[in-house]
Amino acid sequence: MLTRIDHVGIACRDLDARIAFYESVFGLTVASVEVNESQGVREAMLHVADGPAGSSYIQLLEPLGPQTPVGRFLERRGEGVHHIGYGVANITVALAELGATGIRLIDERPRHGSMGASIAFLHPSGMGGVLTELVQAQTA
Amino acid sequence: MLTRIDHVGIACRDLDARIAFYESVFGLTVASVEVNESQGVREAMLHVADGPAGSSYIQLLEPLGPQTPVGRFLERRGEGVHHIGYGVANITVALAELGATGIRLIDERPRHGSMGASIAFLHPSGMGGVLTELVQAQTA
Repeated sequence: MLTRIDHVGIACRDLDARIAFYESVFGLTVASVEVNESQGVREAMLHVADGPAGSSYIQLLEPLGPQTPVGRFLERRGEGVHHIGYGVANITVALAELGATGIRLIDERPRHGSMGASIAFLHPSGMGGVLTELVQAQTA
Repeated sequence: MLTRIDHVGIACRDLDARIAFYESVFGLTVASVEVNESQGVREAMLHVADGPAGSSYIQLLEPLGPQTPVGRFLERRGEGVHHIGYGVANITVALAELGATGIRLIDERPRHGSMGASIAFLHPSGMGGVLTELVQAQTA
């Protein structure tokens, strides 16, 4: 079902500073910077590698305010890894298969993610403490 | 410097149960199960994808006891993402370059990692809260 590690989502307090850090220290390049109002974040995708099933990224997430999911995460846990996103070929099929196993879904239907992707989150309580995202890339 | 997302390291309390979960729900296959005494873990690498610079894995980590790094992590944070491992072509060169930038290294020199890899950790305090691992695969 999983075609690749699409991205690692990292919560940070200062997106521009964290982008500059990954650019200067690791030589990564920015693929996109977007505001996602429905998720309450300003976010950047930094390109790490290409693969046969799509690219892999570091996703940096800055909350739009303290009363957002990432804002509350920062208050509770501090900066660090927020979630893992895996590529899937067909997110509708994947959600149906996972729903049938009884896995707890946050999103019953796909919604809008970075760079035009269709995404859905699985609840960490059913995933061994890992907030897990499925990603069907726009070009998949 | 970074060639791929090599793995996501996930701390768990019951390695065999967590392996079975990823096998049955996501259809992943086990590439290796090892005990690493020096890191205080029993661990499994579950294959996610192949790419031009090497494969990507989910790494599941069960502590050998409570007074190990992963044991203390579980006590403090519970199950969840423990670290991110990135592939590098030459870990000695990468460590020298990172050391020159003033990034705080946990390992000044490479040590033994999963599946014969040479690895080194970067301290989360210099990495925006993310425990970060560099991985030079055995076959690289």
